[in-house]
Amino acid sequence: MKNILIIGCGLLGSSLLRRIHKKKIAKKIFIYEKSKSKIAKIKKLKLPGTIVKKLKDGAINSNLIILCTPMSEYKKIILRLNKINLENTLITDIGSTKIDTSKIIKKFLRKDFNWVQSHPIAGSEVSGPEHGREDMFVDRWCIIIKYKNTKKNNLNTLSRFWKKMGSKVVFMTSEKHDKIFSITSHLPHLIAYNLVKSAQDFENKQRFSLIKYSAGGLRDFSRIAASNEIMWRDIFFNNKNNISKAIDLFIKNLNAFKKDINSNNNKSILKKLIQTKKVRSKIIKLKQDVNKPDFGRI
Amino acid sequence: MKNILIIGCGLLGSSLLRRIHKKKIAKKIFIYEKSKSKIAKIKKLKLPGTIVKKLKDGAINSNLIILCTPMSEYKKIILRLNKINLENTLITDIGSTKIDTSKIIKKFLRKDFNWVQSHPIAGSEVSGPEHGREDMFVDRWCIIIKYKNTKKNNLNTLSRFWKKMGSKVVFMTSEKHDKIFSITSHLPHLIAYNLVKSAQDFENKQRFSLIKYSAGGLRDFSRIAASNEIMWRDIFFNNKNNISKAIDLFIKNLNAFKKDINSNNNKSILKKLIQTKKVRSKIIKLKQDVNKPDFGRI
Repeated sequence: MKNILIIGCGLLGSSLLRRIHKKKIAKKIFIYEKSKSKIAKIKKLKLPGTIVKKLKDGAINSNLIILCTPMSEYKKIILRLNKINLENTLITDIGSTKIDTSKIIKKFLRKDFNWVQSHPIAGSEVSGPEHGREDMFVDRWCIIIKYKNTKKNNLNTLSRFWKKMGSKVVFMTSEKHDKIFSITSHLPHLIAYNLVKSAQDFENKQRFSLIKYSAGGLRDFSRIAASNEIMWRDIFFNNKNNISKAIDLFIKNLNAFKKDINSNNNKSILKKLIQTKKVRSKIIKLKQDVNKPDFGRI
Repeated sequence: MKNILIIGCGLLGSSLLRRIHKKKIAKKIFIYEKSKSKIAKIKKLKLPGTIVKKLKDGAINSNLIILCTPMSEYKKIILRLNKINLENTLITDIGSTKIDTSKIIKKFLRKDFNWVQSHPIAGSEVSGPEHGREDMFVDRWCIIIKYKNTKKNNLNTLSRFWKKMGSKVVFMTSEKHDKIFSITSHLPHLIAYNLVKSAQDFENKQRFSLIKYSAGGLRDFSRIAASNEIMWRDIFFNNKNNISKAIDLFIKNLNAFKKDINSNNNKSILKKLIQTKKVRSKIIKLKQDVNKPDFGRI
């Protein structure tokens, strides 16, 4: 890899930046960032890379372009990239949904350009370049979207890149991707937002404060309910079909739980609670979470 | 305080034991535990206190008795305590719901006995005396249930005890208690169990593995969905009225979210996501969670 352009330098963009610099993966790293406050932070933190004022200046000199902006920005950026000669450049993105974004790419991107989509399963409830970490992608999965006509050399280049970021790479279609993450990521975030909203509604109605008692469980949910609102709005809108189905399944199961509780169905409740318990040890065994009680937070 | 009897020495019972011993709060600590495997662990860990084989031997010599068993055991224990002369002993429990347990106490406990209920807001997804910690209750709230006729000196004794455990004490009725914790604790646990169950159902139906991608959000929920099943069955059954109402509010809000998503209601979604975000900083300000991204787990 010679030169890399990162478009959008927030939490994940700046994590890529740090890693690329540390592992000496590119000769030059260009950063294109439209937010003045983020640029100020990047400068203050003395992050590596060259900030370019014009998108073209970074793009024309790069072999790999990585979009790290909210997904709702893609179309605008594509229309600008189209005006630059990027036939020999590999473009990727790190957006969290793939069916809708692939449609936008297909519809608007120049046919002689190469774009292969990525999705590293990494992030945090905090945003901004000040929270980026060089080890953000280490031991995390990175999904690369593979269509029938995806060029092998592009898949190889991108796969090598993510492995250098420390990730474990897996290929799948956008359809499978969006189904899986509607359950493992999008529904959990929606549920967390919804639980916190319900607690707020309850607090307003009952007129007594209850957030201070959140150590009983609510605090776990409040973390992902503090995630970036633009990013999550985009995800909810983009993957609405899968998320709707996930909501329906969730409500169906919740009503069954309610019925079990109200009818004192001991056998059914215990079966469920014992069954769900197994998932935690599976997650820890798969090294997808820390092996300590309470996330090791105390 | 002279002597204390702990009935049930699991996660919380053994945490009390450690704290009482370290802070020299009692002259003697008695432990009554019916599980042979827990007794073996207590001995192996060389935890302080005297294990009594007969409940009476510990109870008759104690000034304070603390029930740390599942709530479904209370009735059986009360009937046994009734046979001992405990008119001058203060009894408390640490159960997570209060309306139902107060009814059991009122119905079955000898009228000349003194029982004031407690609920320390502390715990973990792991169980057993090996996971107990001396600092389990430090800076955590402890609710003491106060009725009109509760004797002041008993309230004072219990309040002093919990403050020595490191807790912040607050008094409230069982009705208010069960309402608050249906939202901050019981609903979150139910939702976590239900989300993990839904992910399992989805995995079985689609026939592709997805637990390995849980770092996208699901893993946060899997922690409390790994909590003790007997304890949580008891809570769900005991507080069914409040929990049912909480489920209804949750489903109503979730359907509204679904509608917003399916109609691309940008304004409504953003308002909710920005509003819920505030709760996290409030929780951290109230010192109810660690002030680090990702619970500081990485």
